[in-house]
Amino acid sequence: MFAEAGYRDASLRRIAAVAEVDAALISHYFGSKDELFAEAMALPFDPGELAERVFGPGIEGAGERLCAAFLALWESDAYGRQLRGLMRAAASDERAAERFRGFVQSRVLPLPGEHLAIDRPRQRMALIAAHLVGIAFLRYVLAVEPIASTPRDDLVRWVGPVVQQYLSGDLASPGDGGGQP
Amino acid sequence: MFAEAGYRDASLRRIAAVAEVDAALISHYFGSKDELFAEAMALPFDPGELAERVFGPGIEGAGERLCAAFLALWESDAYGRQLRGLMRAAASDERAAERFRGFVQSRVLPLPGEHLAIDRPRQRMALIAAHLVGIAFLRYVLAVEPIASTPRDDLVRWVGPVVQQYLSGDLASPGDGGGQP
Repeated sequence: MFAEAGYRDASLRRIAAVAEVDAALISHYFGSKDELFAEAMALPFDPGELAERVFGPGIEGAGERLCAAFLALWESDAYGRQLRGLMRAAASDERAAERFRGFVQSRVLPLPGEHLAIDRPRQRMALIAAHLVGIAFLRYVLAVEPIASTPRDDLVRWVGPVVQQYLSGDLASPGDGGGQP
Repeated sequence: MFAEAGYRDASLRRIAAVAEVDAALISHYFGSKDELFAEAMALPFDPGELAERVFGPGIEGAGERLCAAFLALWESDAYGRQLRGLMRAAASDERAAERFRGFVQSRVLPLPGEHLAIDRPRQRMALIAAHLVGIAFLRYVLAVEPIASTPRDDLVRWVGPVVQQYLSGDLASPGDGGGQP
């Protein structure tokens, strides 16, 4: 309901009607609509486990592995719908935006630094996140063609090297001597 | 009002109140709320003019020029607010999503092909658009750090080469013989 109708229009009453329960029962178990929303938006997968698979084997090939894992997640029956709802909500509701921002900053951006010896791991991962989030937005939320119908393997082959460049390329600022801190 | 309150909550009555006019006057001049929205969301700049500046001088350096022009637009007093509103609306409202999709497909994706002799210009531009839109989403809409506070010049220096890679790199599918059509 949050994914389809948006945060504002998904009233406890409508949710209760679809769930065929009394709205009071939802309040009893989940508290406010915001708490129910937090529960519904809690990511059902562990980003740490995903990072282990992507970065654990080393930096070589990590770009393609990350890209493939990200797209597979968005195209999975289990998580795709929820991720689309999360992105829609983050764009239109300030509470959802805060939650999304907190998740990215505390759970996503540290991941490469936990596995790889690279300079500026958070800055690199922020650029990668921006690219992947943008692909998700155009492909899954807005359905812009041709990116919506591009075969997943083609996307991995094109975007993977770019993600790799962000991971292992030079990310220097002028005057800081080549990017090593 | 559309940018701040979202499409659904921006009623003609609220808009009229802020504008200090009678709601009937808005209906008289703009028709329905959807027509007013179309008017408000009409891009105030010409993507063709921007493409002329970016792609006109040739493919060399086009990645950095495009990246710089895109960020400058989002950070301008004239267009920044409206662009944020457009993105928020596109994520949460199906009519706005259609309009955004139509704009990208008909006005943005053809641009490099009008100036540069490259294969698959629409596919390349779709990947570039995905990256730039993702940066706008994280930087201007969600304010994810560190990307929200990264100096614009740094972003241009990091993202520009990636955009360039999408413009001038190999975009082959297996079996189509190296990416030239």
